[in-house]
Amino acid sequence: MLEMEAVRKIIRRALEEDIRSGDVTTSNALTGSETGLATALAKEDLVVAGMDVFREVFRLRDGGLLYETELIDGARAPRGTILATVSGSLASILTAERVALNLFQRMCGIATLTKQFVDAVAGTKAKILDTRKTMPGLRILDKYSVRAGGGRNHRYGLYDGLLIKDNHIEAAGGIAEAVRRVRGQAPLMVKIEVEVKDLAEVEEALAAGADVIMLDNMPVHAMKQAVQRIGGKALVEASGNVTLATVRAIAETGVDFISAGVLTHSARAADISLKVKRRP
Amino acid sequence: MLEMEAVRKIIRRALEEDIRSGDVTTSNALTGSETGLATALAKEDLVVAGMDVFREVFRLRDGGLLYETELIDGARAPRGTILATVSGSLASILTAERVALNLFQRMCGIATLTKQFVDAVAGTKAKILDTRKTMPGLRILDKYSVRAGGGRNHRYGLYDGLLIKDNHIEAAGGIAEAVRRVRGQAPLMVKIEVEVKDLAEVEEALAAGADVIMLDNMPVHAMKQAVQRIGGKALVEASGNVTLATVRAIAETGVDFISAGVLTHSARAADISLKVKRRP
Amino acid sequence: MLEMEAVRKIIRRALEEDIRSGDVTTSNALTGSETGLATALAKEDLVVAGMDVFREVFRLRDGGLLYETELIDGARAPRGTILATVSGSLASILTAERVALNLFQRMCGIATLTKQFVDAVAGTKAKILDTRKTMPGLRILDKYSVRAGGGRNHRYGLYDGLLIKDNHIEAAGGIAEAVRRVRGQAPLMVKIEVEVKDLAEVEEALAAGADVIMLDNMPVHAMKQAVQRIGGKALVEASGNVTLATVRAIAETGVDFISAGVLTHSARAADISLKVKRRP
Amino acid sequence: MLEMEAVRKIIRRALEEDIRSGDVTTSNALTGSETGLATALAKEDLVVAGMDVFREVFRLRDGGLLYETELIDGARAPRGTILATVSGSLASILTAERVALNLFQRMCGIATLTKQFVDAVAGTKAKILDTRKTMPGLRILDKYSVRAGGGRNHRYGLYDGLLIKDNHIEAAGGIAEAVRRVRGQAPLMVKIEVEVKDLAEVEEALAAGADVIMLDNMPVHAMKQAVQRIGGKALVEASGNVTLATVRAIAETGVDFISAGVLTHSARAADISLKVKRRP
Amino acid sequence: MLEMEAVRKIIRRALEEDIRSGDVTTSNALTGSETGLATALAKEDLVVAGMDVFREVFRLRDGGLLYETELIDGARAPRGTILATVSGSLASILTAERVALNLFQRMCGIATLTKQFVDAVAGTKAKILDTRKTMPGLRILDKYSVRAGGGRNHRYGLYDGLLIKDNHIEAAGGIAEAVRRVRGQAPLMVKIEVEVKDLAEVEEALAAGADVIMLDNMPVHAMKQAVQRIGGKALVEASGNVTLATVRAIAETGVDFISAGVLTHSARAADISLKVKRRP
Amino acid sequence: MLEMEAVRKIIRRALEEDIRSGDVTTSNALTGSETGLATALAKEDLVVAGMDVFREVFRLRDGGLLYETELIDGARAPRGTILATVSGSLASILTAERVALNLFQRMCGIATLTKQFVDAVAGTKAKILDTRKTMPGLRILDKYSVRAGGGRNHRYGLYDGLLIKDNHIEAAGGIAEAVRRVRGQAPLMVKIEVEVKDLAEVEEALAAGADVIMLDNMPVHAMKQAVQRIGGKALVEASGNVTLATVRAIAETGVDFISAGVLTHSARAADISLKVKRRP
Repeated sequence: MLEMEAVRKIIRRALEEDIRSGDVTTSNALTGSETGLATALAKEDLVVAGMDVFREVFRLRDGGLLYETELIDGARAPRGTILATVSGSLASILTAERVALNLFQRMCGIATLTKQFVDAVAGTKAKILDTRKTMPGLRILDKYSVRAGGGRNHRYGLYDGLLIKDNHIEAAGGIAEAVRRVRGQAPLMVKIEVEVKDLAEVEEALAAGADVIMLDNMPVHAMKQAVQRIGGKALVEASGNVTLATVRAIAETGVDFISAGVLTHSARAADISLKVKRRP
Repeated sequence: MLEMEAVRKIIRRALEEDIRSGDVTTSNALTGSETGLATALAKEDLVVAGMDVFREVFRLRDGGLLYETELIDGARAPRGTILATVSGSLASILTAERVALNLFQRMCGIATLTKQFVDAVAGTKAKILDTRKTMPGLRILDKYSVRAGGGRNHRYGLYDGLLIKDNHIEAAGGIAEAVRRVRGQAPLMVKIEVEVKDLAEVEEALAAGADVIMLDNMPVHAMKQAVQRIGGKALVEASGNVTLATVRAIAETGVDFISAGVLTHSARAADISLKVKRRP
Repeated sequence: MLEMEAVRKIIRRALEEDIRSGDVTTSNALTGSETGLATALAKEDLVVAGMDVFREVFRLRDGGLLYETELIDGARAPRGTILATVSGSLASILTAERVALNLFQRMCGIATLTKQFVDAVAGTKAKILDTRKTMPGLRILDKYSVRAGGGRNHRYGLYDGLLIKDNHIEAAGGIAEAVRRVRGQAPLMVKIEVEVKDLAEVEEALAAGADVIMLDNMPVHAMKQAVQRIGGKALVEASGNVTLATVRAIAETGVDFISAGVLTHSARAADISLKVKRRP
Repeated sequence: MLEMEAVRKIIRRALEEDIRSGDVTTSNALTGSETGLATALAKEDLVVAGMDVFREVFRLRDGGLLYETELIDGARAPRGTILATVSGSLASILTAERVALNLFQRMCGIATLTKQFVDAVAGTKAKILDTRKTMPGLRILDKYSVRAGGGRNHRYGLYDGLLIKDNHIEAAGGIAEAVRRVRGQAPLMVKIEVEVKDLAEVEEALAAGADVIMLDNMPVHAMKQAVQRIGGKALVEASGNVTLATVRAIAETGVDFISAGVLTHSARAADISLKVKRRP
Repeated sequence: MLEMEAVRKIIRRALEEDIRSGDVTTSNALTGSETGLATALAKEDLVVAGMDVFREVFRLRDGGLLYETELIDGARAPRGTILATVSGSLASILTAERVALNLFQRMCGIATLTKQFVDAVAGTKAKILDTRKTMPGLRILDKYSVRAGGGRNHRYGLYDGLLIKDNHIEAAGGIAEAVRRVRGQAPLMVKIEVEVKDLAEVEEALAAGADVIMLDNMPVHAMKQAVQRIGGKALVEASGNVTLATVRAIAETGVDFISAGVLTHSARAADISLKVKRRP
Repeated sequence: MLEMEAVRKIIRRALEEDIRSGDVTTSNALTGSETGLATALAKEDLVVAGMDVFREVFRLRDGGLLYETELIDGARAPRGTILATVSGSLASILTAERVALNLFQRMCGIATLTKQFVDAVAGTKAKILDTRKTMPGLRILDKYSVRAGGGRNHRYGLYDGLLIKDNHIEAAGGIAEAVRRVRGQAPLMVKIEVEVKDLAEVEEALAAGADVIMLDNMPVHAMKQAVQRIGGKALVEASGNVTLATVRAIAETGVDFISAGVLTHSARAADISLKVKRRP
């Protein structure tokens, strides 16, 4: 579930960014009493994410608007699907339209791309993970959209997961020392993950007792060896410029998780239009 | 110039989103006294945008970090270019790294895509424009990045430009009436633009005295006729799912401006890495 | 229309400023169950502005209060007119009273003064404009009140209008250069205005292609010459310590707009009282 | 002393209101490297208030600007006095100018008007007080300006003074009951004031043990009687549409304090200009 | 009465602190459609404070939750008392539970301790006062809880009471000078209190005309002498590490007020449980 | 390490709560030019926590104050120890004093109490844990203070740990189902903990594959059996009204962790005074 209190902050900020002192076109070209119906239409095949966000934009703008949909997040919507309708004051709808679409199109775009990754690894044990390469200020939406597309979340931020990367290892003087340091201090409920670049480091991470081992940018055959060596003693995550073209081969190495920054740092906005009809 | 006070708000929010109660890995794996040098490297050809933003993330995290670069926004940086270096506390650098990259990669990504559009219309009079299809909360950065890539900004939001779209026209009962209404009320310094879908509406917009006429999703030959009919009596903007494949033909119709939502709603993040070396 | 989301921020801040930890008088002297009726009365002739603001203060304080009025913004209300009534919890009304009046009296004060300027130029083509000399934090209300009084808005801030003043001209090394610089960079939808102090500068501004020319503190006869010289090639605005005593003569020079800082930097609060009667 | 942390919030909000996404004129017409000197000049006789506020606006905009003045708040500055100078980046000065002046002119305006009231009662024991009729969001500045003009502050808000007005009395069923209720509950350090409209109510207020008695809109001869009757058993405040024309006569009745809403709800902005010279 | 607008800010901040990106347990372990009843139970004898705060936490989390209680703040609730019930969505109740209890337990804890102090001085004229030693960010709740327990509030902060302590006296060069300085500048409605450490200083404070005299850490017999010397010419407050063991003897010296920091800086949380039952 | 950006928010809010419109005593009784030295003294044996917070309060109030200490967080400070000194403007020190002490005394109080628990279990394998029963708005400080006292943190909030309590189990229809649900959805890096009340539930939790098992309010002998049954297959946490009197016996059952709400919901403020001396 999406934490709506956090979502509302994002929406209010977005509406304020777009409207500020007022929508000069709508407030002057309309009398304010016109009513009508707006229809959100999928103009390409997509996976739905963000229905509650889309609705909430209109609701925060005008509590009197009515919203209807028959879809839920995670559903596939082929080109031509009516995603939702909003009815009520045309002035309210027109002023909120752009923000609602900007958020909804991004969320559906991420879910759609994620689903493509998930489908690509179907039949393997690998789960698709997101990263922290999310849009600044929108992480909660980005990570939710990945889940709507069938992916799983890695950590939310620097505060809720111990991921010891190459830089930390260098700074601490080795994997063993780095893990030792964090183990003594970390919050009880957080796992420890170690990033490794070759099999030698896999050994070190195992010896240090990592909960999760991240294979960073390793060739597929090395990943396979690593998975066998780890043999269930830790969870295994593959990472590093994973694409739709490469994800299947990585999954077949037997890793537990594959993380892909592209899901959130370079997702295209889904093509969705909002058509408005005035009520006579 | 970027309004840095507004940028700082974005950065603080992004750092807070990522760090919250603390970077548990860095604060535990490092002693805090390690120092070193971080190098930002272009891993593909790109156009630079957001140098000040990149630096400001590190500066806000730790005023003692030193930043150096020889590039300015708008510069082309071929694959392999060192974009900037940051030196000082490793703990500070590692904690700020992700936010700095997330912002910088997006900005460079937008600038790079914009430049491709600008190059595609070279030799015509057409200027490339952005739209309001920006990332919620990041509009000021998105629009700046478009400028860094050689594009121009349309309006910033609903408050600083009168753009009468089909919906407003329907609500008002025609172009003439819609323009008449807004003309009497609008702030003095804001222009009036009318969106039209065919030549008949071009006539109406001209008659109503629009400052700018937006040709929305019109075929190229119709755009050409529209440009001739308008004959300099208003500025002409072409709009509607413009892509790199179609932009040149549109530019050759003689329009003054071409707006492309893709610049900001679907730009890929530029590929940039940050490598850290510890000082002995 | 007033952007109510922005207005609510102003009201919440004002209530917080006045109430903070609590209204110690009302919360102690009343039991909290008393109800009654409050009547807002015009104690001098005035032009109404801010009805929605006045109501919203009470509504934000206590959603259960009832509000009634038969007047709309822009209406003339002679001395003795009942402007509105509020009924419900006396404790709520008494605690919100001062903030509601402080805002309403200022807004009516500005509208009333603006209407005097508008009436003074009746029969000429000149429109009365406001400036950026508004009360910090209350600009949206000040500018709305000017519209309620029959005036027009100039720009909202530094972000939505290009106004090249003497200082910019000096810095850029002349009007031509200053206009050339901004023309290449400015957002599409924003007009360019140039401030001039004599006829020589009028020529330069015309040559540079200004959309609007501001005659700053020029004598009336020089304004007249300027208007003739410009001859419709740009809009003309007169500015500089305009008062009720001087505005008519300025309007008769044929300028399109007259801006007056006094409307917002020195408007008197309209005299309005709120009388409360307890329900038995 | 002014609480500068609170002042900075006001200034940041004001700058944000005026600049938002950026000062499009200054950032485009200037290169950003121009430097110069700005001189704030009194264009009428005034009493200075807000020197620290004026400086802080420039300092918050650009920490590199230099500020100089030889005056302190409360000083009289005749027409033609140079109030202060600011030097450094012209872009910074021009962008901050309007906000700095808007605040400074209001503060000097209030101080100047207050001093006129203070001078008018010279030789009597009466002190001039402000009210809660301040500009929403700017109360801390308004009340400081009154002090700079030689006035005293009444309470800051509903939270730091018990003022039982006619409405509270009606709700509570009489002065005695109202005072009794608040006395048992009020914070220790806050005084109790009762508003009375005639001599009968003066008796009641005295009997109830009020610390301060406010004579509301009473004729001068009745005030005189009230003062004699009270005979030092409580402080006496006169209130109700007090003007420069009436304040002397009121003071001569022997009241301790005279409060005047006009000081803050209707003060004119003092006439101050900022002239900028570019450094060659 | 509690100022609920200020309370809501505290609650929103607390919920955000606890929930941030989402309650991962509740949102995943529950379907979201489960409903039930939660019962708040006193697990020790206590004095109730914060009923409205407890309810408001649930209401802000989910407007659909129903709340019932038969108790009001200030009531004594023996061990085993059902304090309140909340019914509706189990997901909403479980997510809000901890914040609701954290606030409610603290408030009841303070009220309970305060009541013990109040009972200890029963029959004397002494009133129990709080101090500014409250939990940062929660002062409004702490001070309200003291009132619910039968105590009185001293000042709210540095802004609404003039308390001249030893440090101010040293800085000003003596009690007389310190009082003289503040008397000329202070807001009209605020009393002046002077902290004294012996009888000599009592004399000075009396001579200076203090409204309240605080006997700081004086022996009981000296307090008695001080009370007699002051003889009603000022209110008398005893202060300094007052405990339940010492408060009675202090009260019997005849002081008007006794302030105790322990009420808020070291109150235990009252023992309250929330038991949830699922509706079939 | 403490995340200082989050700490500064807490401090600013606390200063604002105490000072608001201004410290009327200090700003009036002092001239503002007095300087001096303030000494923070331990008036009882304590464990230090919050040195950086104490210093930051003064630094945020006045960047010119100098701070010195020879102690670090976690150090034991016997009664009479000088904890730190602050020197500079007396006005700045006096205004910030109360907030600095309120925060510092709470933090040292928590660390001191935690250390008593840690000492009580010395020689066993048990680590002392905190809970979410922290002071609303101050959780980051409370949890840090527990670490300074030698304790460990459980989770920070509902977002960074999956703790399935009895209520979740009831709602989901059993431990197995609840764990199954969360396992499929939870972020990768977060552990799953199950609360159990008897040995039967221990079996279920083990079967479901819990990472951590919390023994809630179980008798000591039952805990011992549970530890043996679990046999290292999950971490074991003991919980439920743990006190200094009971903690040792619990530790000797062999549990890995013991959590104690009392550390943060009922810690006494450490007794610390700040003595100020004026520089001649």
